[in-house]
Amino acid sequence: MPVPVSFAPLDTLPRLMRSRGVEAGRCLVVTDERVAALYGDAVCKGLASEQIRPRLLALPPGEATKSHDRLVEIYDQALAWGMERGVPVVALGGGVVGDLAGFAAATLLRGVPLFQVPTTLVAQVDSSIGGKTGINHATGKNLIGAFYRPAGVLTDTAVLTSLPAREWTSGLAEVFKHGLIADEALFAELEAAADALFERDEDTAGRIVPRAADVKMRIVREDEFETGRRAILNFGHTFAHAIEKVAGYGAYTHGEAVAAGMRAALYLSAQVSTDFDRARADRLVRRIPIPPGLASLAIPDLMEAMKQDKKVRGGGARLVLLDRIGRAFVDGSVPPRLVEKAWAFAQEVVG
Amino acid sequence: MPVPVSFAPLDTLPRLMRSRGVEAGRCLVVTDERVAALYGDAVCKGLASEQIRPRLLALPPGEATKSHDRLVEIYDQALAWGMERGVPVVALGGGVVGDLAGFAAATLLRGVPLFQVPTTLVAQVDSSIGGKTGINHATGKNLIGAFYRPAGVLTDTAVLTSLPAREWTSGLAEVFKHGLIADEALFAELEAAADALFERDEDTAGRIVPRAADVKMRIVREDEFETGRRAILNFGHTFAHAIEKVAGYGAYTHGEAVAAGMRAALYLSAQVSTDFDRARADRLVRRIPIPPGLASLAIPDLMEAMKQDKKVRGGGARLVLLDRIGRAFVDGSVPPRLVEKAWAFAQEVVG
Repeated sequence: MPVPVSFAPLDTLPRLMRSRGVEAGRCLVVTDERVAALYGDAVCKGLASEQIRPRLLALPPGEATKSHDRLVEIYDQALAWGMERGVPVVALGGGVVGDLAGFAAATLLRGVPLFQVPTTLVAQVDSSIGGKTGINHATGKNLIGAFYRPAGVLTDTAVLTSLPAREWTSGLAEVFKHGLIADEALFAELEAAADALFERDEDTAGRIVPRAADVKMRIVREDEFETGRRAILNFGHTFAHAIEKVAGYGAYTHGEAVAAGMRAALYLSAQVSTDFDRARADRLVRRIPIPPGLASLAIPDLMEAMKQDKKVRGGGARLVLLDRIGRAFVDGSVPPRLVEKAWAFAQEVVG
Repeated sequence: MPVPVSFAPLDTLPRLMRSRGVEAGRCLVVTDERVAALYGDAVCKGLASEQIRPRLLALPPGEATKSHDRLVEIYDQALAWGMERGVPVVALGGGVVGDLAGFAAATLLRGVPLFQVPTTLVAQVDSSIGGKTGINHATGKNLIGAFYRPAGVLTDTAVLTSLPAREWTSGLAEVFKHGLIADEALFAELEAAADALFERDEDTAGRIVPRAADVKMRIVREDEFETGRRAILNFGHTFAHAIEKVAGYGAYTHGEAVAAGMRAALYLSAQVSTDFDRARADRLVRRIPIPPGLASLAIPDLMEAMKQDKKVRGGGARLVLLDRIGRAFVDGSVPPRLVEKAWAFAQEVVG
């Protein structure tokens, strides 16, 4: 059973850790330099005041950090420091930190306790939930990793106010995704609250984030190890991974790539399910700003990159589509010709 | 629940894989060069005849292969080849191959099906059972890894006839250990069959190996993730890891180091439990030949290396001791002065 998210202020972290069996002693806090500057001191002081002596490891922000070299850096530092079983790792940051530090925690000494403290919108509604950890490989994103259950997840929506604007709007892609694939009522609420959301109204965020996180939690509860239904969470993602790969990691944020990828998937959904309301779905999704240049990515390159996605089985792309807003299914029979058209659609309007 | 071992001829592997859900398609066979020369062809032909197209990756034999560089080599080859979820990894070999390929299977695409096909005595009675996978780190053995349940374990005791003599006698260390820690009747049988075992009588091996494997399976079933009782399997191992580290990996086989380490632990057991029959236990253990040079390892270096073992908690060595043959317990309060004496005992008689 996946661990439920604790929605609570950041300063309750030491208490959460204690309540989950962490004893007085040491802990390793992995974060990035941006988050360290904002919350590093406060988190470390809070831990120390509960007799959990922290060691802070701040890595450069950005997708490039989700690499083998950084993983080895964590291994080397943790082991030189004398990492022991039972000493927890705190992943304080966005999806990159959560995935990387999570994978390190999963594999150091065959697993030490992991606490996820997501500080970005994407991480709060998506990547911190469900136990996926991992790093990128030259061949593609997230190709090395593990399913690893954290001992706790602490989410404080107040920290979202410190996010750069681009990370905020990128995160909205995953929020919208959760409405689209599994919760029409949430989608309707997102439509109604769209202006407030794009203006990053705090109360709206405090209300929407737990709802979007809950969609993810419900799906993961049904299928923790992604043998079936959990695949619908990849809505837009096969396209997104191809964009990230062809454009080069870092050119687009993950959320931006997902937004563009969802638009391609919405196009296909309308092709396959003729009464699917593509216009309504797209009206919200296309509000997510995407940096220019998408149209310059060559469709044959994107098609080739999709083939290498790890969700591919037996050579055929299995794509997540919608038959209506709030209901997703997996389709393994979309002809390549239609996929090319979907790419053109996503490029044309957004680019 | 850990997967039971299938004791059956090697050529039944494709059928076992099919029965555990492997579909027609590809598979990655990881092995070492010695085993590849003996069984590579037969295994690959057998797989191909069941429509499981194998790709064989043969690594240099020896503990040095259980490294980060080799792990990355498997990642790179598997991913360049187009590894997909559902494509199984077969670990054909001894403990090094099982641990390394097992860890690769655990972490490629967040886990692909793993089949363990142990070909050494150590692997058949110990390392292939219970889901521990991992690699070594400069700081110590097995410090990076994961618990990962194989989809199947196929053990053919007939392959043991091809083992180099030194690997056979090294493997007996783990066999004896299983009698010592948890099965006095097995230990008595080992005493009675000792000559036949050291002469590597095939029938004796065919009878003893499943019994020794069963001890491991019973313990793992009680405590899959080593939160308690499973620790008794580390009898002799805290000492062994220190020997391997100080002598340099490869100077002693793991089994040789365990044999010497068990002798140190027998010494301590008799110090702590005054009616423990050390002479009887040691009579069998000391028959395992250990290359010269053990006495030249400096005891302060060995003591220091023990401190870095991952089973160490809160700075104090937790050692597995026996209160009688067939019954083990964990003692966290052995004074360093006694541990030094145990080292001297192990060095004096064996060296």
